[in-house]
Amino acid sequence: MRVAVVGATGAVGTDLLRLLRLRSFPATEVVPFASERSAGRTIDGADVPVRVMADDTIDGFDIALFSAGGSTSRTWARRFVERGTTVVDNSSAWRMHDDVPLVVSEVNPDALDGHHGIIANPNCTTMVAMLPLKALHDVYGLREMVATSFQAAGGAGQKGIDELAAQVPVLSEDMEALRTDGASAMRRVEHSVHADTLAFNVVPMLGAIGEEGYTDEELKLRNESRKILDIPDLLVSPTCVRVPVMVGHAVAIRATFERTVDLDEANAALAAFPNLVVQDVPTPLEWAGRDETAVGRVRRDLADPERSLNLFVVGDNLLKGAALNTVQLAELLHQRGLVRATARA
Amino acid sequence: MRVAVVGATGAVGTDLLRLLRLRSFPATEVVPFASERSAGRTIDGADVPVRVMADDTIDGFDIALFSAGGSTSRTWARRFVERGTTVVDNSSAWRMHDDVPLVVSEVNPDALDGHHGIIANPNCTTMVAMLPLKALHDVYGLREMVATSFQAAGGAGQKGIDELAAQVPVLSEDMEALRTDGASAMRRVEHSVHADTLAFNVVPMLGAIGEEGYTDEELKLRNESRKILDIPDLLVSPTCVRVPVMVGHAVAIRATFERTVDLDEANAALAAFPNLVVQDVPTPLEWAGRDETAVGRVRRDLADPERSLNLFVVGDNLLKGAALNTVQLAELLHQRGLVRATARA
Repeated sequence: MRVAVVGATGAVGTDLLRLLRLRSFPATEVVPFASERSAGRTIDGADVPVRVMADDTIDGFDIALFSAGGSTSRTWARRFVERGTTVVDNSSAWRMHDDVPLVVSEVNPDALDGHHGIIANPNCTTMVAMLPLKALHDVYGLREMVATSFQAAGGAGQKGIDELAAQVPVLSEDMEALRTDGASAMRRVEHSVHADTLAFNVVPMLGAIGEEGYTDEELKLRNESRKILDIPDLLVSPTCVRVPVMVGHAVAIRATFERTVDLDEANAALAAFPNLVVQDVPTPLEWAGRDETAVGRVRRDLADPERSLNLFVVGDNLLKGAALNTVQLAELLHQRGLVRATARA
Repeated sequence: MRVAVVGATGAVGTDLLRLLRLRSFPATEVVPFASERSAGRTIDGADVPVRVMADDTIDGFDIALFSAGGSTSRTWARRFVERGTTVVDNSSAWRMHDDVPLVVSEVNPDALDGHHGIIANPNCTTMVAMLPLKALHDVYGLREMVATSFQAAGGAGQKGIDELAAQVPVLSEDMEALRTDGASAMRRVEHSVHADTLAFNVVPMLGAIGEEGYTDEELKLRNESRKILDIPDLLVSPTCVRVPVMVGHAVAIRATFERTVDLDEANAALAAFPNLVVQDVPTPLEWAGRDETAVGRVRRDLADPERSLNLFVVGDNLLKGAALNTVQLAELLHQRGLVRATARA
């Protein structure tokens, strides 16, 4: 198989190339695509130097893995598909299209069947939450969730990491200001990626404000959860917050079910779910760089002990939250004979 | 008035001394108390060097402001009261006692009437949440809340700040490890104050696990909210998380009311509440060092738009969350003629 990696020089793209090799993906050639600025560069995990997408450079691929933002995906994904290539897209561009499956490899792999050339990879925060919620949904029937996220700087890509990394030493120079005059400390650093100063702070605003005062990110959490879990009327109350963590998202979830929950049974269902680890107190930093998602603080709700559980889930937003799931979807497509399904159809 | 400040060398004690002077509290003498280790030291805002508590050093005070931890309060608060001193205690020792008022100055000042010598200052996270919840409760009748906290290192006092400050430069030396092997990065630093490495991490565990798998801190949020707002059956689903912020707590709240909410009216009620500021996107660092609490991201709940609101509240945990409210209570006691009420009774 010839594999294209679009957005190969970004934070997720770098991980895509590494994982294709690490997991021995059966590629005959891995071709990296990026912007003009990176053209010709040699990068780890790619078989040829970086190319720029054009009508005459995108022919002959079996699979294209996209992680270059929504506008690149909107412009180029269909052009790959027209040439018989199956696209796994990590942007938000196609996720909610009716004829595009939105897939977490352990949660709804069967949604890949009958795809029309584009498969969407979920938002990194939604991804992390899906594993424990699917495990519990299968037993109790998920009806409602209040979800509050703790999202890492890396959720905004390498530039999100770089912005936080640049702020930390500047603000560290005057620890007293962080205590007695935070507003003046904030004026000593710049921000353009995150909505406000992120070092030694938390910022409850990711993306633009849309419907009913909710951000893009919050609406994604509701809409994508409904699609992935196939619960169209799932009630979701989302709050998305950026925190000064480099990599590793966390989500605090109060989940309400159709049926009465049993704590031991719930823990057993979580522990039995693939690539999900139950741990008393999971923290995002501990799981940065690991493939598994971890869940802990599982407890019956104090307000509704019969049908609600609280849990805290963490996972690497660049791996399971992005690159790993993308490669897992490519593997599933290959195993199930669904690569170039479009071309054969 | 002679004023004792117990725990005068700690993070909150330092602020108590500063605020007594800054706010021109009518004290004739301010006497600092601390452990043997600090005895004899001269500190800002105190009229005499640091003393150690003993039967012959605690006589003759009108008010004692305690912030030296629960066991000191349990041992010494009653001894001050026996001598006619009114104690405002910042520890958790007395908060839930039936004959001890638990008071936020703007929320339930009338609870001070008829006190029996000890008045309790609420937990810093609960404190921050009380202002907007009281404003909305008065209009709509609060029935239930799902509350997820983002608590600063300073919530654990100066040692909590110091532990985070020590970890930041060590972990900053190898940014790549924070992305690719967080668990190994964590082994390069020590922690004893916070439940796990806090720098570039979030830790969903504050205090010990108690009833039903909830931490002390989470149970405080439920129990103290009920007492302060005088809603004995308030339903609370709490999750308390430590974040790498020096000072400034935040709480994401989904609040459900008895009556139908109106967003404009709710915002007006919040804006009209004393010492509460409505801001689109409040962040804890911006409000560190300020007296006001800020609330934002106010929006109707997606799952229950009729009766539920979501909001994000931030406040300085050492000021309004601790020292400021303590001094405000002392001011109220003075204004209302409630100092030495016990002695007169």
